[in-house]
Amino acid sequence: MTRIFDNPADFADDALDGFVAANRGYVARVDGGVVRSTEVPTGQVALVVGGGSGHYPAFAGLVGPGLATASACGNMFASPAAGQVYRVAKAANAGGGVLLSYGNYAGDVLHFGQAQLRLNAEGIETRTVTVTDDIASAPLDQIEKRRGIAGDLTVFKIAGAAAEAGLDLDAVERLAIKTNYRTRSLGVAFDGCTLPGASDPLFHVPAGQMSLGLGIHGEPGISEHKMPTASELAELLVSKLLNDKPDDAGNRVVAIVNGLGTVKYDELFLLFGKIEKLLGKAGLTVVEPECGELVTSLDMSGLSLTLLWLDEELEQYWAAPADTPAFRKGNLAPRRPRERGTVTAVDASDVEQPTAAAAELGRQAVAVLAQVRDVVVEHEEELGKLDAIAGDGDHGIGMRRGVEAAFAAAETASGASVGRILTAAGEAWSERAGGTSGALWGSAIIAAGQALGNKAGYSSEDAAAAVTGFVDAITELGKAEPGDKTMVDALLPFRDAFLTEFDAGAPVDRALAAAAAAAESAAAETARLRPLKGRARPLAEKSLGHPDPGAVSFGLITARISQHIDAQLASPAGNGVQA
Amino acid sequence: MTRIFDNPADFADDALDGFVAANRGYVARVDGGVVRSTEVPTGQVALVVGGGSGHYPAFAGLVGPGLATASACGNMFASPAAGQVYRVAKAANAGGGVLLSYGNYAGDVLHFGQAQLRLNAEGIETRTVTVTDDIASAPLDQIEKRRGIAGDLTVFKIAGAAAEAGLDLDAVERLAIKTNYRTRSLGVAFDGCTLPGASDPLFHVPAGQMSLGLGIHGEPGISEHKMPTASELAELLVSKLLNDKPDDAGNRVVAIVNGLGTVKYDELFLLFGKIEKLLGKAGLTVVEPECGELVTSLDMSGLSLTLLWLDEELEQYWAAPADTPAFRKGNLAPRRPRERGTVTAVDASDVEQPTAAAAELGRQAVAVLAQVRDVVVEHEEELGKLDAIAGDGDHGIGMRRGVEAAFAAAETASGASVGRILTAAGEAWSERAGGTSGALWGSAIIAAGQALGNKAGYSSEDAAAAVTGFVDAITELGKAEPGDKTMVDALLPFRDAFLTEFDAGAPVDRALAAAAAAAESAAAETARLRPLKGRARPLAEKSLGHPDPGAVSFGLITARISQHIDAQLASPAGNGVQA
Repeated sequence: MTRIFDNPADFADDALDGFVAANRGYVARVDGGVVRSTEVPTGQVALVVGGGSGHYPAFAGLVGPGLATASACGNMFASPAAGQVYRVAKAANAGGGVLLSYGNYAGDVLHFGQAQLRLNAEGIETRTVTVTDDIASAPLDQIEKRRGIAGDLTVFKIAGAAAEAGLDLDAVERLAIKTNYRTRSLGVAFDGCTLPGASDPLFHVPAGQMSLGLGIHGEPGISEHKMPTASELAELLVSKLLNDKPDDAGNRVVAIVNGLGTVKYDELFLLFGKIEKLLGKAGLTVVEPECGELVTSLDMSGLSLTLLWLDEELEQYWAAPADTPAFRKGNLAPRRPRERGTVTAVDASDVEQPTAAAAELGRQAVAVLAQVRDVVVEHEEELGKLDAIAGDGDHGIGMRRGVEAAFAAAETASGASVGRILTAAGEAWSERAGGTSGALWGSAIIAAGQALGNKAGYSSEDAAAAVTGFVDAITELGKAEPGDKTMVDALLPFRDAFLTEFDAGAPVDRALAAAAAAAESAAAETARLRPLKGRARPLAEKSLGHPDPGAVSFGLITARISQHIDAQLASPAGNGVQA
Repeated sequence: MTRIFDNPADFADDALDGFVAANRGYVARVDGGVVRSTEVPTGQVALVVGGGSGHYPAFAGLVGPGLATASACGNMFASPAAGQVYRVAKAANAGGGVLLSYGNYAGDVLHFGQAQLRLNAEGIETRTVTVTDDIASAPLDQIEKRRGIAGDLTVFKIAGAAAEAGLDLDAVERLAIKTNYRTRSLGVAFDGCTLPGASDPLFHVPAGQMSLGLGIHGEPGISEHKMPTASELAELLVSKLLNDKPDDAGNRVVAIVNGLGTVKYDELFLLFGKIEKLLGKAGLTVVEPECGELVTSLDMSGLSLTLLWLDEELEQYWAAPADTPAFRKGNLAPRRPRERGTVTAVDASDVEQPTAAAAELGRQAVAVLAQVRDVVVEHEEELGKLDAIAGDGDHGIGMRRGVEAAFAAAETASGASVGRILTAAGEAWSERAGGTSGALWGSAIIAAGQALGNKAGYSSEDAAAAVTGFVDAITELGKAEPGDKTMVDALLPFRDAFLTEFDAGAPVDRALAAAAAAAESAAAETARLRPLKGRARPLAEKSLGHPDPGAVSFGLITARISQHIDAQLASPAGNGVQA
């Protein structure tokens, strides 16, 4: 049970502050996470890791020379928001580009992906390697769908060592991909973990039972077993991992026995001893193993075994020194502290000087966002009810939280350009709304803002670029296909209608009106679709005959924006978009 | 709950084997614990730490350059036996003497103390510094009675750094004493821990409550509290420790927030952040703090705060590098592995070549031990019943376990000298009997054996030296005073009677007969005593009118030995002790 806090809502932030206080020689706090407090050589690739909090030493505990450059730290078991990742990566960047690496979870993929789009758009070359080591989460032929658990450590360690050795972004990325490809993990759980402020665990494993492959947040496992002896458990874990080994595996492996929280050191060592013997019997040589708590889940009772099949270059980088709060290896020369004030995400490119006309257009963008907020608030209850038919019913409240934060951020930024206003709004939406749709909306608004930038007037071409940017962000990050019964089923008809009108030479207000009509009608059409494959069948059946709430809200919003722009153009002072 | 094992009885041993397998670059296994697997410079003081298992990284995880040289590792929450400490210390000794350091618990004091007697008797200069940091365990004016908790780390770290710096035994001992004197800890517990094989925790704290000062094995705390907020807890711990600060404290402190098992990292960091601020407000500067799991109790839910008030020399040794499996600081040059085969407690001095006459005397010693075994077995039930009146009733079974193991070990060693026979018997008694009386009997028999050594014949002077050695071992280790109603109340009259006869020129058999008679009569006399102060009053009342079982068993044993020797002398082949 998690007991030490003042206010559970502040737990992750307070803990991160305390972590930095205890480790000032290693890390400094930045908005959204931590970055090394020691010098990073100019041109070194920045390895930015991260994920939800509650997994210490993943992720902040792995920041230091020879390992990560920075960590983006989300709330408890929740991805950091895209803006957090973006700011942390900007603070970490030393001119050599950024490698984002994290466990393959939907929320992280969305938010880190959104940050990557922004970083690349700003000229900071950014790549991503997601960790997919958990063999219980998908079969080997769908390895890219597997989630990441303690294999985080092998991927981060080798990528960090490669960056430390001065390799370029291509090479660091290649090594991270190779390490991930050669890493396999399998976990077991004996009981759940309790979030701060909760009195009951997030999930339970029945007493005397063991769940094989249960995820670190309670994601379903692959089978239930009577609690085995240590020898039986070692046999089970080793045999399952060896059955899943990569091609060209070789016979030298790193073995990592990782405790998730309340399985303690003596137990982990005892198990490690048995595992090492079994690996030896299987003809494998164990190289520089690890046994301890490396990726945890608060006070969860469970453990995992990770194997990394080495080759010559991976062994070299695994064995290289590293010096972080929670993971040390070998001996690195002491590093000088970074100069005070250099640890910040704010740099000169963040200051803009919009013209009066550009600032006026920015104010019009704020007015558009006010309309978006109004239409969401008016329909909040209806959207919630629609979502409750086959979902968790939070679409209305989530959209409202996002749009209210976005409007407030836009208002605060008033006086800036359209690009800056929309970026602030998108960041706020993404951070406050939470969930997939919040991340998608936030990311799409930022993408539109980046397309529009800081100008004193916009052409139809600019408008088309903004629409395309908005749509691409959602399809790229959300990965939903047409027919999956999501917002995409309204989004693509919207884009297609807009671009058809645009190609035919229609002014923006007419193109927008046609596009909004297409979106609303396509949203209504989603009633005949079944929801995307992942969802449970009974819920899929319930959903039939009702439109998708994400598609509906998108249709409502585009219709309201179209009406607003028509009204602006019709008014005597109508001088907004150049029609 | 502790779940990962094959056979709970083998848990500590199996875990230690696994620990060594995972950390071969740091440690090697020796009988009774672990010793550094890297070279130790000749002449360096050996810091030997240790205690019960279940407290990882205390104690084995702290072995490495700049910290401990070796660790004696007992069973779960149980002191290592004296023989284990002795063998580990012999393996650790590099010619610079040995500093034994461990938490101040009765079992550890007995067994490490017994080992120290043996090491010193063999010419390996050995000192002891017990750690007494837990302010909840006794008032400040009885600081020497306090038990040791996470303050182990500060004392070991500074002593280890001093040894590494090449300081001699006097200087290392002085620094360890000073560090202990300037270290204070206070712990809290929220729930107990479960031993391997048990289904219920060793102890409980009621839900929603916190016990202040509860010991790491469940020893009673000083008060119960409703679960506080993190800020309240920080305030409580800091204020209590500051109230207990040493004279000439200064304003620079090491602060250590230590988790006992299931209070996890984020919680510890959160608390550390609040503690650091409070210390700052109190005018203290926090120097190189630690926040993590440093002295645990399996899966116990609890934590402690330790403060060490630094002075200039302590700060230097605290900041010095160290490189161990669980605790690393700074950068030490890599060490070469020790040569294979040098990590062993067996050296040339362990091989003896007794003459035929010496071996015959050794066999007579085995015959004496057979008599001791017989008399204990005959009286086992009676001793148990006597002990049950005001104790836990295990004196009969404990003595039987000890003496049977001692006789078996002596028989196995048959052919060796008296000294070697008695040493083997004493070690076995001490390791198998458990408890205080087992350690005292074992230690006393070893001391007698060391006094007698390897000779082809013994004088009365030798016999007197053996009696004195036997008695001194018990009074020195057991620390009971005459009148406390213990074995000592029969032991001292025995010695006095023996030495009076000896001074008067009596032969050994006569002196022994007089001494045994004195012991038996003194044992009977203990019926009018109240038991020693520590015991609860109701039990003290019950005890009145019944003799002390430890005094009675001592009287019975000495009487039987006396009869046996008389019988030997009376027999035609009587040629044992030179009467």
